Amino acid sequence: MPNGARSVGGGAASAEPWTEVARLVRSGDRARLESYLRTLPPAEVALSISRLDQEDQTALLMLLAPAEAADLLEEVPDAQAADLIEDFPPAPAAAIVGEMSSDERADLLGELDAEDAESILRAMDPVEAEGVRKLLRYPPDTAGGLMITEYLAYPDDRRVADVLEDLRAHGEEYSDYDVQYAYVTAAGTGTLVGALRLRDLLFAARDKPIAEVMITDPIRVAAETSLDDLQQLFEAHGFVGVPVVGPAGELLGVLRRTAVKEAVGRRAGGLFLKVSGIVGGEEVRSLPLGVRSLRRLSWLSVNIVLNIVAASVIAFYQDTLEKAIILAVFLPIISDMSGCSGNQAVAVSIRELSLGLVRPGELLRVLAKESGVGLINGMVLGSLLGGVALLWRGNPYLGLVVGAALAANTLLSVCLGGMLPLALKRLRMDPALVSGPLLTTVTDMCGFFLVLKLADMMLPLLA
Amino acid sequence: MPNGARSVGGGAASAEPWTEVARLVRSGDRARLESYLRTLPPAEVALSISRLDQEDQTALLMLLAPAEAADLLEEVPDAQAADLIEDFPPAPAAAIVGEMSSDERADLLGELDAEDAESILRAMDPVEAEGVRKLLRYPPDTAGGLMITEYLAYPDDRRVADVLEDLRAHGEEYSDYDVQYAYVTAAGTGTLVGALRLRDLLFAARDKPIAEVMITDPIRVAAETSLDDLQQLFEAHGFVGVPVVGPAGELLGVLRRTAVKEAVGRRAGGLFLKVSGIVGGEEVRSLPLGVRSLRRLSWLSVNIVLNIVAASVIAFYQDTLEKAIILAVFLPIISDMSGCSGNQAVAVSIRELSLGLVRPGELLRVLAKESGVGLINGMVLGSLLGGVALLWRGNPYLGLVVGAALAANTLLSVCLGGMLPLALKRLRMDPALVSGPLLTTVTDMCGFFLVLKLADMMLPLLA
Repeated sequence: MPNGARSVGGGAASAEPWTEVARLVRSGDRARLESYLRTLPPAEVALSISRLDQEDQTALLMLLAPAEAADLLEEVPDAQAADLIEDFPPAPAAAIVGEMSSDERADLLGELDAEDAESILRAMDPVEAEGVRKLLRYPPDTAGGLMITEYLAYPDDRRVADVLEDLRAHGEEYSDYDVQYAYVTAAGTGTLVGALRLRDLLFAARDKPIAEVMITDPIRVAAETSLDDLQQLFEAHGFVGVPVVGPAGELLGVLRRTAVKEAVGRRAGGLFLKVSGIVGGEEVRSLPLGVRSLRRLSWLSVNIVLNIVAASVIAFYQDTLEKAIILAVFLPIISDMSGCSGNQAVAVSIRELSLGLVRPGELLRVLAKESGVGLINGMVLGSLLGGVALLWRGNPYLGLVVGAALAANTLLSVCLGGMLPLALKRLRMDPALVSGPLLTTVTDMCGFFLVLKLADMMLPLLA
Repeated sequence: MPNGARSVGGGAASAEPWTEVARLVRSGDRARLESYLRTLPPAEVALSISRLDQEDQTALLMLLAPAEAADLLEEVPDAQAADLIEDFPPAPAAAIVGEMSSDERADLLGELDAEDAESILRAMDPVEAEGVRKLLRYPPDTAGGLMITEYLAYPDDRRVADVLEDLRAHGEEYSDYDVQYAYVTAAGTGTLVGALRLRDLLFAARDKPIAEVMITDPIRVAAETSLDDLQQLFEAHGFVGVPVVGPAGELLGVLRRTAVKEAVGRRAGGLFLKVSGIVGGEEVRSLPLGVRSLRRLSWLSVNIVLNIVAASVIAFYQDTLEKAIILAVFLPIISDMSGCSGNQAVAVSIRELSLGLVRPGELLRVLAKESGVGLINGMVLGSLLGGVALLWRGNPYLGLVVGAALAANTLLSVCLGGMLPLALKRLRMDPALVSGPLLTTVTDMCGFFLVLKLADMMLPLLA
């Protein structure tokens, strides 16, 4: 039965599981609810929770034991988990958060308003709360914000036998730690001095001091190290984790490779949402209508103002347009196509910035690289559109006006799109958020101006 | 010196390192080049390679020992690595690929044309080549495509002492494997029967059969398991890796958590590029101008045709527009704003699909959730634009026409944008690629139609 009951990937429940979950929640039968949830594949659990209404979701978490509730929250997206725990009284919320690992706690509480997070922290075990506060002090995408504070560390005056004895005595507890390394600190100061490969302990003489078995002066990272640098570090080395140290070299925590990979993935997912205009946090459709509507509007309302500004160029050339009304057909095409060409360059720049393949100061390099693409693509697209205009109306001057305008505007848009993310990064603004709207406003204005100005100059030939 | 020379995150070279790399490459001094590259932080290595011209890049890889060249290729993006190795004679290319780990080999060769990949495979060690061919047979984002084939496996008739002896004898070789588990297979058939935690061997009696120490019937995945299911599995369990099995339960490889996290991150990054119109593979600016230009044009040229189709609606209502030329100002605004609103809904749907929070068949559920947002945001944006039109021209009917058209088109666009990715997924098309262009074409047509049809009906009141 190797591919049987425990394998993953196939099968689906015949009835919808969330109706059963809702029924069990309302019946208040904790034991049957817990055993039912355990039979569901993780994907179905996340889906089922998102399908319950707010009231049932809260009742579900209240009904479960805190450890079960914590497991459950780890299976739903952070935004949804935060939305759930927000409405909870602080005491049960603290009990649930207390069952999570240190980095998951910090992730969840970091999603909440400072006020909500503080009331949960006050209801927690003071030592654990202090640990979370420490993690929350570091920005989320730094070594400090991503590290876990559950790690094994031994003073450097211990022997191999001491460590093996400790591992044996606390085996059950440590089995959650998922580490292949223990760390060695200077007895007294807590300064990191070495890393101990657990595998090496297998073959070491029991009475050796661990200082003789450890890897001395291991690679470490400062708590402030950025996600970009961490990503590079783990790409260059096969480490499962690296120790994180404070300003005096004291060991603060362990940063696992998986935490870095997850943060990189999360950032890429956030990038995708942001360029599409989903701002203010991840949106899942289980969030209340008002929240979803308002978050989307916050971005749209800035955009509509920018759009009105750009379109005012058309109003300015209204008389020209009236005399060659056919141009009105081409204005939205030139606006949209320039936006598309520019956004391709924006995407490549954002990607290259995040991969470290370009530095924010290298505007001229990007200009050199993009102007070639802009020139070629501008000429191709301009000829295409100009050709369509010529064939449709049989007027070569119309073809010339719209073709030349699109060609010139494509060149401008591609160059600007390539450079904008770098410039925004230098100004410490978010390229994923600001590049798109800013770019399309400028290219719309220039595109409309080019078409209408050229038309104005050749008006007798167009009519 | 805890935070000294070996810590990561600070510092930058004063001169540009790639000029020095280029100089050393041209001098042909392998030893000095290798030692110089070792002094560079990984970020600088990737950056430096991307700044060399094609000729220097090839010369660099030819000059280095195959193992060093392999390390180097692992530090640059896959697209760039593939572009480099493509121009290589098969024999040295095979020597470099031979130094990579099994999953990296498959990733790199998977990026090449089938022909280029085959000529490298023919020049490789036949056993290794067969291994790569096996991996290439699985789609990239499945357990089979992501697994590594370097793993520890022992027949179930061995004893603890045998395993420890093997580990001791091959310690150096295995140290690359980065595993905490060995696997146990049925002697003879190769069927997976257990997993052996290396830590447990520490405390086991040496003469015990490993079958008594192993975890029996461990969780495994079929080679075809999709990335979505794998992501859910690793979210639900703390595994560092899981065994991958074939149809008869035979052990094929090991899937590491990091491989899944990386694939998820890569998919999110690809998503971001695709929605921005970068298709046909990742673009880095070190690729040749022709390739970059052509790839971008392939998407733009489809888009311009769609744009012309959409704008033909305006041509159809040219007479109406001539009589109320002021509407030409509002057409691009309505086109752009509807596109923005719809793309927000597209992004949320693509995200929910990838998180497993919605199933491709649940069109009605999405419609119910999006129609509320569409209605609210449509009314807000419609009132805003209508208000601007009214204030600007003092004509309430103009405000009514553009406001009502934007409101109705926003509702349509949001509903359609939410449902389109689900429908495309069901039709086995790529939502990230197709949703945007398809959506904007439909919403442009409807938006232009709504404005111009409404205006046509109220023409005497607008003039």
